[in-house]
Amino acid sequence: MKFVSYKYQSKVYCGILVDDMCYSFCDFLLEFTTMNEFLQNYSQEVLVRLKSGSNKAGISIDSVEILSPIISPLQDVLCVGVNYLEHAKESATFKGEKFETRDYPVYFSKRVDEMVSPFGEIPLNGDITNMLDYEVELGVILCKDIYKPSRDEVLDSIFGYTIINDISARDLQKRYKQFYFGKSLKGSCVMGPCIVSKDEFNNEIPSLDIQCYVNGELRQNSNTRNMIFKIDFMLYELSHAMKLKSGTILSTGTPSGVGMGFNPPRFLKGGDLVECKIEKIGSLKNFVSSI
Amino acid sequence: MKFVSYKYQSKVYCGILVDDMCYSFCDFLLEFTTMNEFLQNYSQEVLVRLKSGSNKAGISIDSVEILSPIISPLQDVLCVGVNYLEHAKESATFKGEKFETRDYPVYFSKRVDEMVSPFGEIPLNGDITNMLDYEVELGVILCKDIYKPSRDEVLDSIFGYTIINDISARDLQKRYKQFYFGKSLKGSCVMGPCIVSKDEFNNEIPSLDIQCYVNGELRQNSNTRNMIFKIDFMLYELSHAMKLKSGTILSTGTPSGVGMGFNPPRFLKGGDLVECKIEKIGSLKNFVSSI
Repeated sequence: MKFVSYKYQSKVYCGILVDDMCYSFCDFLLEFTTMNEFLQNYSQEVLVRLKSGSNKAGISIDSVEILSPIISPLQDVLCVGVNYLEHAKESATFKGEKFETRDYPVYFSKRVDEMVSPFGEIPLNGDITNMLDYEVELGVILCKDIYKPSRDEVLDSIFGYTIINDISARDLQKRYKQFYFGKSLKGSCVMGPCIVSKDEFNNEIPSLDIQCYVNGELRQNSNTRNMIFKIDFMLYELSHAMKLKSGTILSTGTPSGVGMGFNPPRFLKGGDLVECKIEKIGSLKNFVSSI
Repeated sequence: MKFVSYKYQSKVYCGILVDDMCYSFCDFLLEFTTMNEFLQNYSQEVLVRLKSGSNKAGISIDSVEILSPIISPLQDVLCVGVNYLEHAKESATFKGEKFETRDYPVYFSKRVDEMVSPFGEIPLNGDITNMLDYEVELGVILCKDIYKPSRDEVLDSIFGYTIINDISARDLQKRYKQFYFGKSLKGSCVMGPCIVSKDEFNNEIPSLDIQCYVNGELRQNSNTRNMIFKIDFMLYELSHAMKLKSGTILSTGTPSGVGMGFNPPRFLKGGDLVECKIEKIGSLKNFVSSI
């Protein structure tokens, strides 16, 4: 099932997308006005009610503006760096470091006050960076609070999967030593176009083709099975250190082919079109603004 | 004015502390049930109403349990690393790095699902770290959303000041490369005992003596005027990159004298008593648990 937020006649709704028709949670007599509220109150009964269908007429996807399924995250987005081998190599080369395999993930976070919509504009932020870069990533969304869970409880806490473009300012990541500042510029996180609930993947962690195109040119091309640290491992490790709340977003790292991986580097410019695609989820298409 | 959260007869209240008496916001006919709600709706009129006093009888501080003024932060706590010169030196020595002055702050964040109370217990987290360390810091609390503000608007966005003990797992900070994981263990942030509103400091950024004692022994001893990067500078820089929301907590770095600064290092053990003091704000006193 595909979960979406959308704007229709100037009002924001959240709900589901079925055969190109949007239904709000209200159409199922569910009183959730944000996706976070839905996730915090999620249960099997809610899913059953959604699957049983609605008497209401849906709204065609052509009549709405698709927004990020979670418009304002409850907490910072959790991220993992250098989680695909070839990207780890290109990243070390760009930083002038020797490449070494790592025994532990590199976790960090990204402040996002508001997500960029799946087809919205990415600000160039040219007044503070001239090394803006793209990173297509599989996003994992939680629907349960977990702290020191069993491995089964970890899998049970996953609600579904989405696409994230983890826009990164390479000059600022380096200048401020920790990644945080360069990852958190306003308008630097695109997410959507929907969250696909895990039942669509037989409740297993899926292996999905993942790509990024810039102006139609294929730049990143991999499969999520190539992650060095797996989703269940990372959620288990993180939740044994800190409580992860329902609504948590984990962005699971990007494959090779980002702008800093080229020689010379190919950073984003005003007018560029960035398309992030993940099999069975969909795609994000965003123009970069000129300022 | 001192802003507090407290538990009285099993119920949680937030409000103000006047002459050792606690008054809830309800005592002033203000319907804020959390400090975040208060901060998001803060205005001069609210302050005037609080200053005009209440007809209700307050509750003696001896009858309540003082909680962290913000029990659950809205977003990750914003932090700045190595912001006092002598601490920057001891940190470089511990990491085996050459000490160099930095032209830019080191920003990072800290996930806090729930604050440790000012007199609550700090978990040792002995199953995942054996290098738990203390860091007394001045915390700054915002009461306005700011994005690309003027310098005056930055000052205007500050609500007040508090004490933070930014508990840090040194082994995990290093193992996971970015600070995030080692800073975010459950129970690793103590904040309080109150937020002192900025009018108590003539609306200026205050220079305050700051100390940390472990088992009565003075370990950290400085003044907040010794920060390398000043509070208004950091808020200006951060808010020109990302939107800072009302309720934002900025922890402004720690002076020298942390456990990793000693040779051999002196990390926290079960049963230790950590006391963090800042002039005109008060103190946090926390025992470390045995597990």
